Amino acid sequence: MKILVVGSVALDSIETPTGKVEEVLGGSAIYFSVAASFFADVNLVGVIGKDFPEEHIKFLKERKIDLKGLQKEEGKTFRWVGKYEHDFNNAYTLDTQLNVFNHFNPTIPDQYRRSELVFLANIDPELQLRVLNQVQQPQIIACDTMNFWIENKLSALKETIKLIDILIINEGEVKELAKETNLIKASRAILSLGPKTLIIKQGSYGAMMVKETSIFSAPAYPLENIVDPTGAGDTFAGGFMGYLANSGSFQEKELRKAIIFGSVMASFTVEQFSIDRLRSLTFPEIENRYGVFKKLTYFDDIKNDQ
Amino acid sequence: MKILVVGSVALDSIETPTGKVEEVLGGSAIYFSVAASFFADVNLVGVIGKDFPEEHIKFLKERKIDLKGLQKEEGKTFRWVGKYEHDFNNAYTLDTQLNVFNHFNPTIPDQYRRSELVFLANIDPELQLRVLNQVQQPQIIACDTMNFWIENKLSALKETIKLIDILIINEGEVKELAKETNLIKASRAILSLGPKTLIIKQGSYGAMMVKETSIFSAPAYPLENIVDPTGAGDTFAGGFMGYLANSGSFQEKELRKAIIFGSVMASFTVEQFSIDRLRSLTFPEIENRYGVFKKLTYFDDIKNDQ
Repeated sequence: MKILVVGSVALDSIETPTGKVEEVLGGSAIYFSVAASFFADVNLVGVIGKDFPEEHIKFLKERKIDLKGLQKEEGKTFRWVGKYEHDFNNAYTLDTQLNVFNHFNPTIPDQYRRSELVFLANIDPELQLRVLNQVQQPQIIACDTMNFWIENKLSALKETIKLIDILIINEGEVKELAKETNLIKASRAILSLGPKTLIIKQGSYGAMMVKETSIFSAPAYPLENIVDPTGAGDTFAGGFMGYLANSGSFQEKELRKAIIFGSVMASFTVEQFSIDRLRSLTFPEIENRYGVFKKLTYFDDIKNDQ
Repeated sequence: MKILVVGSVALDSIETPTGKVEEVLGGSAIYFSVAASFFADVNLVGVIGKDFPEEHIKFLKERKIDLKGLQKEEGKTFRWVGKYEHDFNNAYTLDTQLNVFNHFNPTIPDQYRRSELVFLANIDPELQLRVLNQVQQPQIIACDTMNFWIENKLSALKETIKLIDILIINEGEVKELAKETNLIKASRAILSLGPKTLIIKQGSYGAMMVKETSIFSAPAYPLENIVDPTGAGDTFAGGFMGYLANSGSFQEKELRKAIIFGSVMASFTVEQFSIDRLRSLTFPEIENRYGVFKKLTYFDDIKNDQ
């Protein structure tokens, strides 16, 4: 199965307690695509400026990411400048230059319209709706968003959420969107807006999946050396959707495995700047870390030794 | 196996968004004992004033908690007045009257000195050391503490920590004690102080166990209706130590099960004020919720469907 992703492509300049990089490959669609490409074919829709380095195009093509939907416009590529303090918990935006991303109007190439899975990365919900108007009966639509859209485009966001299957957002956004501080009550309120599945990203605490009749809780990988948390959420979504596309089944047991694969991919991404750790990553390494997650969470049934 | 617990016995007045109670049964040794009593025999050492209601004594005896070590002194019982805001994350202390607890000098009755498991609840580390001087080769010594002792009695605390097997503290305290913001690095620093096992309480995110060569991550029960989080940590420790005493084995697989039992007991406690939920709790309810934790965390091995 093929995955369509629509989101940002950026050149990031990032400072963390472990180092500093300038104008490295970034953006939600990039982190998502590279992670998903380990599992499935990815169709990318985004926009770049004339200044976007050719080496990045080459790398994305090497990863077999389809770039027919990557529009090249007059002007400069979207730039983000950010900084993390020593606890890595908050990204402080120092500068944002939207450039060509400012007028991004996603156009889905004909060959992409029948992608079985669609991921709407965190962009204006009005653009997310435009994407949904261009695709033909995908089997799974997943979507991310952020506090800015909850605060400024709530009605468009709710329209999008009504049309999707899986909402993948941060814990704080769950509570803000539902106006409810109890996470489980907030989750149920969001399920009542439309999606059958809510996936809650909890940073260093892992992720939770809430469905009408079940909850799944996954830990984060215990990371001793974090270099750059940028893109962890999009990488998670990429691993998650990638595994689902590869599996072709969307039963709960597959969703649970997909969450672990998403967590595995995110845990690798933050070990280096940009998507650099994924450049050298191998599938045996992914499988090995999946096994670590299993050991990390395993406990015997109550009656095991009786 | 028998458990010795040394800690506070209190009368708590508590306000939460769901209600208000006055002078109800509380204190670390109480929450711990009542939870542990579902699994094993408990020897309690603490202090009460002349005003301590007889009904509480009766209740503790009904739960087969041994009270030979509960000293009754001239004066009033320790009182704590606290409040929680709508997110239940922080307890705000409105008033503390130490009363007889101010001069608490734990004396371990002869019959208690050979208790196989010892839990030092969160009290002055100098008193914790005095307790350890009175016991005879327990198989497991576990200990709690808090930021106040880290900040004010660090050298006594480090002496205690050197002598114990299991440290059970909050995530924030782990980082403060180790002066390190990365939780895994901080955990390793604490293991180097002496204990073989560190158990990190993470509130609504669950608990983690860090040992030299392994990490276990357990989620919290997804609670929709929290009434009063007071005592959750001590109830966790009570369920944890209670299960270990009952099992008689301290292998890692038993420690993991014990953490789940601790989480189960804590999840019940916060459903009502004081230890009230534990008054009516049955063992089948405990077993049932253990099963819920299993479902909450289960995911297939990577190769399951191949």
